[in-house]
Amino acid sequence: MSPAITSPVPPRGPADHDVRDQIVVAATEHFSQYGYEKTTVSDLAKTIGFSKAYIYKFFESKQAIGEMICSNCLREIEAEVVAAVSAVDRPPEKLRRMFKAIVEASLRLFFRDRKLYEIAISSATERWRSAIAHEEFVRQLILEVLQQGRDSGEFERKTPIDETAAAIYLVMHPYINPLLLRHSFDHTDEAPALLAGLVLRSLSP
Amino acid sequence: MSPAITSPVPPRGPADHDVRDQIVVAATEHFSQYGYEKTTVSDLAKTIGFSKAYIYKFFESKQAIGEMICSNCLREIEAEVVAAVSAVDRPPEKLRRMFKAIVEASLRLFFRDRKLYEIAISSATERWRSAIAHEEFVRQLILEVLQQGRDSGEFERKTPIDETAAAIYLVMHPYINPLLLRHSFDHTDEAPALLAGLVLRSLSP
Repeated sequence: MSPAITSPVPPRGPADHDVRDQIVVAATEHFSQYGYEKTTVSDLAKTIGFSKAYIYKFFESKQAIGEMICSNCLREIEAEVVAAVSAVDRPPEKLRRMFKAIVEASLRLFFRDRKLYEIAISSATERWRSAIAHEEFVRQLILEVLQQGRDSGEFERKTPIDETAAAIYLVMHPYINPLLLRHSFDHTDEAPALLAGLVLRSLSP
Repeated sequence: MSPAITSPVPPRGPADHDVRDQIVVAATEHFSQYGYEKTTVSDLAKTIGFSKAYIYKFFESKQAIGEMICSNCLREIEAEVVAAVSAVDRPPEKLRRMFKAIVEASLRLFFRDRKLYEIAISSATERWRSAIAHEEFVRQLILEVLQQGRDSGEFERKTPIDETAAAIYLVMHPYINPLLLRHSFDHTDEAPALLAGLVLRSLSP
């Protein structure tokens, strides 16, 4: 850690977002070592070398820092999912890729490095804004791909689109929410292909 | 509790299954009051008025008693599901009823009275025989209804039946396994109809 960061007086005139980033980077490191639940804002202040009051100028609570870390992580999953979906043209293939990318990115980010696991669990348990926004992202993406498939004539149009979207969301839910995902490990290898296959059969015109 | 039960010497000549039932009834009561995890076989022995050694003649461990309670509970869910499925003739309607009955019976037995909640959670976490047998029951029932629907021409036959059955099982899994079900509460009202609808669309010939 650089001397500037460990100084109890923040460096003169850093842009606010730089300080926020500094706090988030240090907090991520600290949480991953000592756990999110056990860490207090005082612990963080001591580690970073800021005063507690200074941290509170940028984040109103520990949860707000956790939210930011969680958001960053969820944005990463979302970027991967969007990339996977955009890489192909046809809506059926988009849907297949979406299932696969969500499961893979969620598993890796929530569990493989276990860094964000505890924060993700808190976020899902306490229904943080970041978790709700992530679910909303998935719902929207499902709706978009459905609409594209209906427009291209590749998906059926008899069922109200909201009903179809809600059902597909429910099918994906155990692989989006880390609380359920940790109990779905036995199925994560086969689930994306099996479920995407079932969903695509349900969409055939 | 009757004097015969509280006597440290078991009553003369009871049939083995009667004693087993006696132990299971007393244990269910005790677990529901003090919790499954915290209770020891010694606690149970004291409450029932049997010696610990006598209990071990009938059950090799606390888990064996828990398994029996759990099995009874799961058999009850299964009986309800079978009744719901048998009450109608057509395979599509059978599948709809199956989704609804599984969610309703599981919610009621695992959560509404909370009596069996902790045992159900242990059973699912530690993959007890009773939990595995229950999953197997659901898989078999799905396969049977699928076969009936294929025979009657109401379900498509192109997809290998094992693949179809495995995918439908995955869709139901969050509502069968109590570890997932406790995180699916937000969806239990709408899920049975939405998911059964999606699955039935996927099965149309």
